[in-house]
Amino acid sequence: MAMEVGFLGLGIMGKAMATNLLRNGFKVTVWNRTLSKCDELVEHGASIGETPAAVAKKCKCIIAMLSDPSAALSVVFDKDGVLEEICHGKGYIDMSTVDADTSLKISEAIISKGGHFLEAPVSGSKKPAEDGQLVILAAGEKALYEEAILAFNVLGKKSFFLGQVGNGAKMKLVVNMIMGSMMNAFSEGLVLAGNSGLDPHTLLDVLDLGAIANPMFKLKGPTMIQSSYSPAFPLKHQQKDMRLALALGDENAVSMPVAAAANEAFKKARSLGLGDLDFSAVHETVKDLHYPS
Amino acid sequence: MAMEVGFLGLGIMGKAMATNLLRNGFKVTVWNRTLSKCDELVEHGASIGETPAAVAKKCKCIIAMLSDPSAALSVVFDKDGVLEEICHGKGYIDMSTVDADTSLKISEAIISKGGHFLEAPVSGSKKPAEDGQLVILAAGEKALYEEAILAFNVLGKKSFFLGQVGNGAKMKLVVNMIMGSMMNAFSEGLVLAGNSGLDPHTLLDVLDLGAIANPMFKLKGPTMIQSSYSPAFPLKHQQKDMRLALALGDENAVSMPVAAAANEAFKKARSLGLGDLDFSAVHETVKDLHYPS
Amino acid sequence: MAMEVGFLGLGIMGKAMATNLLRNGFKVTVWNRTLSKCDELVEHGASIGETPAAVAKKCKCIIAMLSDPSAALSVVFDKDGVLEEICHGKGYIDMSTVDADTSLKISEAIISKGGHFLEAPVSGSKKPAEDGQLVILAAGEKALYEEAILAFNVLGKKSFFLGQVGNGAKMKLVVNMIMGSMMNAFSEGLVLAGNSGLDPHTLLDVLDLGAIANPMFKLKGPTMIQSSYSPAFPLKHQQKDMRLALALGDENAVSMPVAAAANEAFKKARSLGLGDLDFSAVHETVKDLHYPS
Amino acid sequence: MAMEVGFLGLGIMGKAMATNLLRNGFKVTVWNRTLSKCDELVEHGASIGETPAAVAKKCKCIIAMLSDPSAALSVVFDKDGVLEEICHGKGYIDMSTVDADTSLKISEAIISKGGHFLEAPVSGSKKPAEDGQLVILAAGEKALYEEAILAFNVLGKKSFFLGQVGNGAKMKLVVNMIMGSMMNAFSEGLVLAGNSGLDPHTLLDVLDLGAIANPMFKLKGPTMIQSSYSPAFPLKHQQKDMRLALALGDENAVSMPVAAAANEAFKKARSLGLGDLDFSAVHETVKDLHYPS
Repeated sequence: MAMEVGFLGLGIMGKAMATNLLRNGFKVTVWNRTLSKCDELVEHGASIGETPAAVAKKCKCIIAMLSDPSAALSVVFDKDGVLEEICHGKGYIDMSTVDADTSLKISEAIISKGGHFLEAPVSGSKKPAEDGQLVILAAGEKALYEEAILAFNVLGKKSFFLGQVGNGAKMKLVVNMIMGSMMNAFSEGLVLAGNSGLDPHTLLDVLDLGAIANPMFKLKGPTMIQSSYSPAFPLKHQQKDMRLALALGDENAVSMPVAAAANEAFKKARSLGLGDLDFSAVHETVKDLHYPS
Repeated sequence: MAMEVGFLGLGIMGKAMATNLLRNGFKVTVWNRTLSKCDELVEHGASIGETPAAVAKKCKCIIAMLSDPSAALSVVFDKDGVLEEICHGKGYIDMSTVDADTSLKISEAIISKGGHFLEAPVSGSKKPAEDGQLVILAAGEKALYEEAILAFNVLGKKSFFLGQVGNGAKMKLVVNMIMGSMMNAFSEGLVLAGNSGLDPHTLLDVLDLGAIANPMFKLKGPTMIQSSYSPAFPLKHQQKDMRLALALGDENAVSMPVAAAANEAFKKARSLGLGDLDFSAVHETVKDLHYPS
Repeated sequence: MAMEVGFLGLGIMGKAMATNLLRNGFKVTVWNRTLSKCDELVEHGASIGETPAAVAKKCKCIIAMLSDPSAALSVVFDKDGVLEEICHGKGYIDMSTVDADTSLKISEAIISKGGHFLEAPVSGSKKPAEDGQLVILAAGEKALYEEAILAFNVLGKKSFFLGQVGNGAKMKLVVNMIMGSMMNAFSEGLVLAGNSGLDPHTLLDVLDLGAIANPMFKLKGPTMIQSSYSPAFPLKHQQKDMRLALALGDENAVSMPVAAAANEAFKKARSLGLGDLDFSAVHETVKDLHYPS
Repeated sequence: MAMEVGFLGLGIMGKAMATNLLRNGFKVTVWNRTLSKCDELVEHGASIGETPAAVAKKCKCIIAMLSDPSAALSVVFDKDGVLEEICHGKGYIDMSTVDADTSLKISEAIISKGGHFLEAPVSGSKKPAEDGQLVILAAGEKALYEEAILAFNVLGKKSFFLGQVGNGAKMKLVVNMIMGSMMNAFSEGLVLAGNSGLDPHTLLDVLDLGAIANPMFKLKGPTMIQSSYSPAFPLKHQQKDMRLALALGDENAVSMPVAAAANEAFKKARSLGLGDLDFSAVHETVKDLHYPS
């Protein structure tokens, strides 16, 4: 018999994920702040819940995929929020990318009502979400993780259980910190190549054949050379993750000079007005900037 | 009819490369400073030249694979060196990793005698050399490159012609600079994960599934977690390449704050006595060091 | 007629400041968490208040000099705190070093009761406090600043009115950030001199004659050369101020790569266990550290 | 009886220094590449030498103050250079700012002819040169230093003997490195203050009253706030000194992350076209740059 799940949040990611659940035989009750966004899901067989509370009342397991910490808090704590109906025997899985503190706050509230909680941020953006190829970084109650594994197998190519609440958020920060530093190293290399008389396209070809070949260089390199930065992952979000990763290092007395230098470059990019572009736009800070005379 | 080539330098890389040429039907005359190292190649069908000059006299095309700039200069300029016999119609291909200045000096000497010159440093170490899977970064005379392409196809999976002499060396520096910064970002991530209560092995698994998955993380990660740094690419050489890449940036007014921070970390590693270990030993500088009381 | 002031907090700084007020004809009612610390002040003519509330009830103007944000909040908000007795016509001047948020929280509470508020953190430590040579960075209500100017003239050599609440805290962060970066630059110079065969003492002499001569280099240099770091300003507090200054930059999109590098060096010092020593102990991170074999 | 000295190089610094010697009773024979520049000195009582060789022939002690390493080498090694007439019993004192290698090369040549050599770069620019308030960083032959002390006492407020040739150059690099990092820290502080709603002029006042008060902040601060960078010490020279200091650190395995970050900021300033302005123009790199749309 198909498992029944609630799904809160139908943005780019949430819509793709809920669709995948429906296609794979799950019964899904959806809710979105703008309810009209639910219509397309209904065509695929979804039911609609009028409020987060209504979804929580109807379903034993509720998945949330919200855009940021304030939205994640809002669907739980606001009027008609999840907290009004969560109770013993129900599970709440927050797959939004939030900081460890937000996650902990939601966890405590859910548990205080007798519910079960799992944070499960994902690695991967629109395309992997559509293809069910996300990587899921779950943490919280192991039993709920085991219940959710069927759903996770539909949504992602791999899921990890990382222990206590907060560890999912932390793991994501570590990965994004490495990614941000790499993006800076890559940008510096592209500009150094170009300004030294080498063809940056050839650099891409050489990189792609060697020990540091990776999908990000391959995907972003050609558009970066064209100074095209259509936002897949906005620079301001990448910078925020660098900041949070450095703060995590500060708590644990880990000195990270390369991440710190990368973070300042992302800040410089923000000060140039590039915060809403793709994080690869940090490339612009390495180029010769025009000095306003 | 098989092409005849001279091969100078039978270190780890040179021996593997000369062997590949022999296995693929080339007639090869080898020379090495310690001549006894030639014996194994003779078993595979190689002839021996007593001196670099003797090899240059006998062969139309001479490939050199020496350990460093001073060795690269020595086989050309010393007594019984290549310069004594190089002449119109002969080609000299230096595949050693040297700086652009050394390359240029050799190029000018060869050309002044009527010879042709190609610098062709490689990306890849022992294993790719044995498997004929190097990436070859050639620059200099295009006509010689075209003559050498059959040999390059045996030695590498891909070769590039990059224009004027010096561009091969520069391309290699750019790639190694990106690699060095990435190694630092990776090290910071591993320590941040560990000190924040996450399992670094899980970080490796998560990284390997995402957009920044790359062979270096996969290969080096497990040994770094064990603090094992058997030298594939010595840290002091990586730091030298960072320094040269930063100097190239200095010449061209390219500011590279992330590479600069990575370079200082490699220097710190040198000051800890880690220069002869693998470049991944920069990982140790991120860890909690012991303070000598 | 002498002005009557309350004084909360008799640590190293507070005791010196209250003593100065008494010596200059102010009537002072003191309170300290450990009341016995008040005795010495009583010998100089002070009265004792049993609680912060008692001091606030008795005095028109109350000065606080607490060790950290939590102590600063505690004397206001806890039972028997200032808030119980502050009222229309009374002024509260917090001279503790706290972040802008803490300052704002106290300000709002005081004002909501009809009181007046001034934050007035100081630049200078024990000696300047004793000598009445502090620099006072006041912000909040201008009228209260003007009332307090007689007291400020006794406590400091100079006071500034910086506008709205929070600006005092911010100004102090900016100054401490510059100081922290300078301390790193100085440490790097001392080690570079020593490791390059120059006498660091001579470096001190040369510095003291030039354009960057400053009291800090003159005071700290000789003890740093002896690796002596008796804490005047603990390293962990300096690092906290670097972190807060960088966070202030983050809010305002100011990229500060030198401060960021200095901050990471202070973190490295913390990871070496030097957090409780003087902030000049960052010098140790630049030296050759011992690698635990 | 007055000592007789030769003086080579009458740029801004040299002219002021030679004038001081004349005013203090020294007999001085001057030479300058553009001989007409000698006229003003002749009015003060100087003799003219037609060539460096002529000056060396006439005088027992020759002081040189040239603009850069190539000029310093030229007056010694070129036709009609000092080397043609230097001999046993004569002393050559090069007060130009050159690198250790150039200094060593000149030293060896002078000594090979039986002459004595001292490098003696100075700290201080035009005004201190005119006022006889330079700081002199001498290294080389102690006996010559002792002979020259009367002249040094006229030219500077203090002179140091630092040991072997090269140490003068190194000491100057260390001082300039600290200065360059401080200028960056100062610039970051000015921009952070301004962008956080504080008056940068007040920051200058606060700084000038505290532990890090120094002549450079006091002198440069007001012009930096006005974005006025009339070159006293050109940024490109400051950046060159940072680079050389970092190279000295590289040789001695001293990791200097703050200096490295400062160096990259100076490079960024060069890439903005600010290399010929005063080194304080690095301030512009911290400000919000315009992004060319």
